[in-house]
Parts: sequence; C-alpha cells; structure tokens
Amino acid sequence: MLVSHETRANKKEIININTQTPIIEIAKKANLASQNVSKLSSKTKNYLLQTLCEQIDKNRSEVILSNKLDLDNLASSTKESFRDRLLLDNTRIDNMISSVQDIINLPDPIGQMLDIGVRPNGLEIKKVRSPIGVVGIIYESRPNVTTDASALCIKSGNSVILRGGSEAINTNLLLSKLIQKSLIANSVNPHSVQIISDTSRDLVTELVSTDKYIDLIIPRGSKELLKFLKAHSKIPMIKHLDGNCHVFIDDFADLVKALKISINSKTNRFGVCNAAETLIVSKGIASEFVPKVVNELSKKNVTVRGCDQTKKIVSNIETASEADWYEEYLGPILAIKIVSGINEAIDHINHYGSHHTDAIVSESKKNQNIFTQAVDSSSVIINASTRFADGFEYGLGAEIGISTDKIHARGPVGLEGLTSLRWVVSGDGHIK
Amino acid sequence: MLVSHETRANKKEIININTQTPIIEIAKKANLASQNVSKLSSKTKNYLLQTLCEQIDKNRSEVILSNKLDLDNLASSTKESFRDRLLLDNTRIDNMISSVQDIINLPDPIGQMLDIGVRPNGLEIKKVRSPIGVVGIIYESRPNVTTDASALCIKSGNSVILRGGSEAINTNLLLSKLIQKSLIANSVNPHSVQIISDTSRDLVTELVSTDKYIDLIIPRGSKELLKFLKAHSKIPMIKHLDGNCHVFIDDFADLVKALKISINSKTNRFGVCNAAETLIVSKGIASEFVPKVVNELSKKNVTVRGCDQTKKIVSNIETASEADWYEEYLGPILAIKIVSGINEAIDHINHYGSHHTDAIVSESKKNQNIFTQAVDSSSVIINASTRFADGFEYGLGAEIGISTDKIHARGPVGLEGLTSLRWVVSGDGHIK
Repeated sequence: MLVSHETRANKKEIININTQTPIIEIAKKANLASQNVSKLSSKTKNYLLQTLCEQIDKNRSEVILSNKLDLDNLASSTKESFRDRLLLDNTRIDNMISSVQDIINLPDPIGQMLDIGVRPNGLEIKKVRSPIGVVGIIYESRPNVTTDASALCIKSGNSVILRGGSEAINTNLLLSKLIQKSLIANSVNPHSVQIISDTSRDLVTELVSTDKYIDLIIPRGSKELLKFLKAHSKIPMIKHLDGNCHVFIDDFADLVKALKISINSKTNRFGVCNAAETLIVSKGIASEFVPKVVNELSKKNVTVRGCDQTKKIVSNIETASEADWYEEYLGPILAIKIVSGINEAIDHINHYGSHHTDAIVSESKKNQNIFTQAVDSSSVIINASTRFADGFEYGLGAEIGISTDKIHARGPVGLEGLTSLRWVVSGDGHIK
Repeated sequence: MLVSHETRANKKEIININTQTPIIEIAKKANLASQNVSKLSSKTKNYLLQTLCEQIDKNRSEVILSNKLDLDNLASSTKESFRDRLLLDNTRIDNMISSVQDIINLPDPIGQMLDIGVRPNGLEIKKVRSPIGVVGIIYESRPNVTTDASALCIKSGNSVILRGGSEAINTNLLLSKLIQKSLIANSVNPHSVQIISDTSRDLVTELVSTDKYIDLIIPRGSKELLKFLKAHSKIPMIKHLDGNCHVFIDDFADLVKALKISINSKTNRFGVCNAAETLIVSKGIASEFVPKVVNELSKKNVTVRGCDQTKKIVSNIETASEADWYEEYLGPILAIKIVSGINEAIDHINHYGSHHTDAIVSESKKNQNIFTQAVDSSSVIINASTRFADGFEYGLGAEIGISTDKIHARGPVGLEGLTSLRWVVSGDGHIK
C-alpha cells in the first residue's frame, strides 16, 4: 500500500526530514543543537516533555492511522510477533505517554557536582555530570523507542539522531512531527531530535562512520543488526549481542523458591534477552530438584536438554551437546547442567555465558557473596527471576538499552548512562 | 648492538614471553588470569605491589643495564628528547617506586557497593564496583608505563597485556621479569601481567582485533599510533588524539593572574598535551593585556600568531590563518584571538578545540559558571594553568591515560577508570 496523501502532507511539515540531506549535514546540525539542549534548565526540559505527552494524547487518532499504514504495508506472511511489536493501540499510546511522564519525574542528572577534594596546593577538584553530546539510536519495529529515546536524550541534555526500521516509518515520522512541535513550542533547537527516513543499510554504515559529530551509538534490534554494527562502527556503542542467562540452584537453596524462579526465568517470556537459557543445579539437591523442575517445564511445553548426570536422574529428555551451553534459544528450550557445587557453576557461567544476567538461588549469605563477586555479569540476581533485569524494574524509568560491554555502563542503561563526568578545577592564579 | 647474553638469559626466566605465542593464546591466558586477579583481597594486591617496589629497588643495577642496552641500540641521529624519555637513572627509578607506592596507598575501588534503593516490590537494587577484565596497553618509549600500568591494573583487579615500543624492549622485559617474580611470590596467576616482545605493527592490529578476550585498549603514544588504532581497533579504547587547549582571558580577569597563567600554560613544557595552543582575549581588556603577554612570550622565544584585531594592537607578530585555530603546535608557537566576550570564546573553543583542557581567567563567578557549563571539555580550569590537567595533580595517583572521548571516563584516568559498576539485585523468591 502506498503512503496516503495525508501522511505525505505530514512529511512536508516536518522541518528536518529530507531523504536528500546527507548524513554529515544531519550530524553537524545535531552537534550544533547539542550545545543548545545541553544548557536547557530542568524546567524547560520537563515542559518540553510535558508538551510531547499532550501532543501524543491530542493526536491519538493520527498516530493510530499512521501506524495502520505501516501495519497494512507488512507482507501477509509477516509473523504475528513482528506485527505485534509494531502495533500501536490506545493502551500502548497510554503507556508511551506514561513512560515520558516517568522521565519527567526523574531527577535531572545534568550539572550534578561531585566534590573530589582540595589538593595540598589549594586547587579545588570537582566533577560535573554532563551530557555526552550527540547520540545515534538505530532500532527496529517498536515505535515507542522513538518517544522513549527522544525523551531520555533530551532530559540528559543530548541531541539525538533516530534511525528506525523501514517497517515503522510512517508511525515514526508522525511521532517525530509531534516531537518537533514540542521542541519548537519550547524554543528549543529543532535539530535536537532528527529522524532519518532513509532506511537503507548503506545509510546506517555512513551514520556509524560520522565519528566527528556523533559521540555514541545505541543499537537496539536483531543480532544480525548488532553484528553488522559491531563490524562497522567507528563510534563507541552501548550494546548487547547475546543474552545467554543462567539460573544456578545452590545446595543451600530453598527449593520452593528455586522452582518458582527457574520456571519464571524461562517461561515468563521466551523471546527476550533476560530469559534463562541454562539451569545449573548443584549435585547435593539435584536428585530432589531436577524431577520437579522437568515436570513443571513439560507442563509448559518446554523441551529440556540435559547433561549426562541430568539424564541419569530424568531419562526422558534430550541430550545437551557442548553447543547447547553457548546457545541463546530465545524459545521454549532449556538446557540443564548438574555441577559439583558453586565453583563449577561460576566457572561454567563465566566461560559459556554472555555476561548479561545470571541468578543464584541460595539461602547461604556466604555463597550469595561468592557468586556476586565472581560472576562477571552486568546483572547478578539473588533469589529472584532473571526477568527483573530491566531498567524499569531497577527504577531507571525507561531504558535506552542494555549493555554487556564492560565499560561506561553495564546492564540496563537509563538517564545516567547518557551522561559522563567532566573535571572542573578551580585555582587562584595557580601555575606549575 | 645485539642483546647481551645476560639479557637473553633473563628472557628465558620470564615464563610468558615467547614471540611464537599467538596473541589469541596470550589473550585467553590473560582472560583466565583476570578471574584470579579480580578476586584478590586488597591486602594481597598491596603485598604484591610492595614486593614489586622491593624487586625494583633490589635490581637497580640490572634495570639500568638493560636500559643502557636500549639506549645504545638507538641510532646516533635519535633526537635528545626521545633518548631522554627512554632513559632510566637512579632518580627515575626512585620515582618509579614511589609511583607504585602511591598506588598502594590509594583505596581499593573493587567491591565498593552503592545502594540504589528498594523497589516497591521489595527487590533490593545495588551497584558494585568491578574490574573491567583484560586491559591491553599499547605504548612507546617511557619504561615507567610498564610498572605504573601494571600496578594500576592489578590494584583495580584487571589482568593486563603490555605492548611497549621496540626501543624500550630490553628495559621492559627486565621490568616485566620483576613483575613476574612479584606475582609468583604472592601466588597470583603469572598471566595477570604479560608483556609482548614482538613489536611489529601487524601484532598490534591482531591485539586490537582480539575482542573476544580483551575488554579495553589504552593506547599511549604518538598521534600516528593513535590514528592507526582508531582505524583498526574492534575493542573499546580510552584515548585522546589531540590536545588543542585554550586559555580565555575574560573582561573580569585579574590581569596579573592572567599573565602568569597564560605564560605558564604555554611555556612550562611545550611538547605535552595539556599545553595551551591558543590564547583567547576578551576585547574589553585586550588593548591592556595583549602587549604585556606578547612581550613576555617574546622573552621566552615563543612565536605569536594573531588574528586581525590582535595585529591592530601589536603589529610585529605573524598572522594567524584559519588552520591555526585547529593546530596543536606542541612547540613554541601561540595563536592569539580577540573575541567580543565570553560567548564568542565558548563558541570558538567548542568549534576548534579538542575537548581536552580549557581554562578561563575571570574573577566573575557568573562567567566562571557559564564557561564551566558550556565548554564541553574533559577538564575545565578556572584561574589556573592548563598544565594541571593531570592524574597526579588531581590526586588519582599515577594515571593510566587521558581520554577525550565522551563516554566512560573523561580527562585523566586513574584506578576508577579501570572499573565499572555492575548491578546486584536481591529478592526473596520474587518472580515476574
């Protein structure tokens, strides 16, 4: 289906959408705009985001209409889960608005001062929390990323270049028009949020090569997209490739909690990065626990692949191969490994895992501490489901992404991850 | 001159130096070792560093002998400044030891817990300061980097792969032998510190491509090396390319301080990244200040290149071209630009600068604050010389590098920059 006349008209009203504009020009403008948005008061930023909430609320029917165009453009063979990720209805628009409202209510990180100390020579050393500059967000499907990412970037004093997927282009253009209106209504440089309507791969390569004007890239999308960006980006990224998450049931586990947490970590949702993929069971409680968990999993139609020792306890399961320990199934399959104790569990997780999220179920404080210290993952969870590894659950408000890299920010990344600390040094004519 | 028999013998004692070992094997071993070093107590780490100080002290004559081999290997045409950077004498060995001792006295960052809060559902959210993992340091000439970097990495719980320059290979191998002895004497995995003796460029390319096992690259060296690494690294880096630093003399400056600070920022040392390259003068005080500063600079044999307005005040200077505002002279040249006031100064710095270090001289608190907020540099200095932008001056102990990137760590990077924060979440059987 072709884009309707109405949407075409909308496109013209959006000042900065022009498929002819080279990336370098978009990036230069974003860079200039970042100097404006970095200096906005908390009050102005919150007014701006409030305006955006009102704009979305006032234009619900237009948003839903644009979204319908995108949905109608999907091939009839499109998977239902993909269609669902793209869909906006009134409930989802409510969530979109309340997510921006949550960001309004978060404290402004910019300008926070940390006193580091006064040096023996009298120099005063401080650090000040500052925006990063220009952030590029590359994402697919979900249109709520357009408003969430814009709101997080503005609140943290950054300008942003959004490159959504082609499948959501009509929805994203309409949403970006509402963002533009909100920027202009609050006298903020309209290039603080720019959306790129050309959705080709070449353009993405160009975007992640413009390191002179863009400071950070945050990709959200398929593993294929992330691998492509990892190979091509000249700009630092906040990203995660894999979510091979583990639940370890310690000898000192409360087996009632262990069962609940194992099942929830695997089955609450299958296709998400914080779902468990391998269950590790300490041998002291294996013969009691494994039959129970396999039974519950089979009720939920989850296929179990076990190590040799697991198969000695429950024979009617598949055999796990070496490859299974590396696997992120993102589906109704769970690998089970029986280990001699906490140390083997830790070694397994650090060797096969993806440093995303790993949980221990144990009533032993000592073992909780050993696990927390030794498991090198961005989130370590004690006696709770891996599914809690999420910016909203951690109180960050909306999250801009999840990082499994080791620098800058690990795990769910919120407002603070869009900032860094600069040094401010005060003297009184000091020379060296 | 060939390597002496004694040094050859030393090489054999060093367990992990083998030019035949592929980088991937070195990196895998470093990765395994990082699991050991990450769990060391503060006490063990400090004992280890104390052993290192003793080893260096006990083996002074051997260190100086190895260093002499390197110096003798230099071509007779080698610049004196290069020779001087490489030289180790007793005073420099004293400094090397006291630098490691400073690191012993710094608080251990690893394991520091930040309470983030308790969520409405009862989940406790904390962050724990953790090592990054495996750090690769690529550097040139100065042999003190070998001991400083090793000490900083160990104290922050990281393993490290050192790749020094070919010109310092004998000194570095001897120092790494002393580090090895200290590791072994304290029962720490000897692969926690590995030095690569193959100094070819191909090997560097391989090193910065081994992203599966190395988490962070810190390059220290020439602009050429940094550009090469920026183009080739698949691993996040902490780096700076340019140090185009500015001193801005505000209308509200104390001109006595302004003169001292301008001269010191330019002439204290020429070839360093935190030396001033452009002096920006506000027009209200220009006719009084510019003749004074040009006079002092000429006494120090500094060539001045001025903008048209500067030349109207002092005619006997060179003319600055557009290219001068971008230039990092690293020598006895200073550009002078007269501006209409603080806003033009800020625009100039943000446009032409390298976000390294920029200073304001002003008695106006208001203008100090405007400058601090708006100048997007890793260090902003008020009423002091740009030359203070340095980890030691900020109280970090030895610095591992300086960053002009916007993420993770900006400016001088010490122990904390070699760590990041992971999430630790505690529940009591919580499921979603």
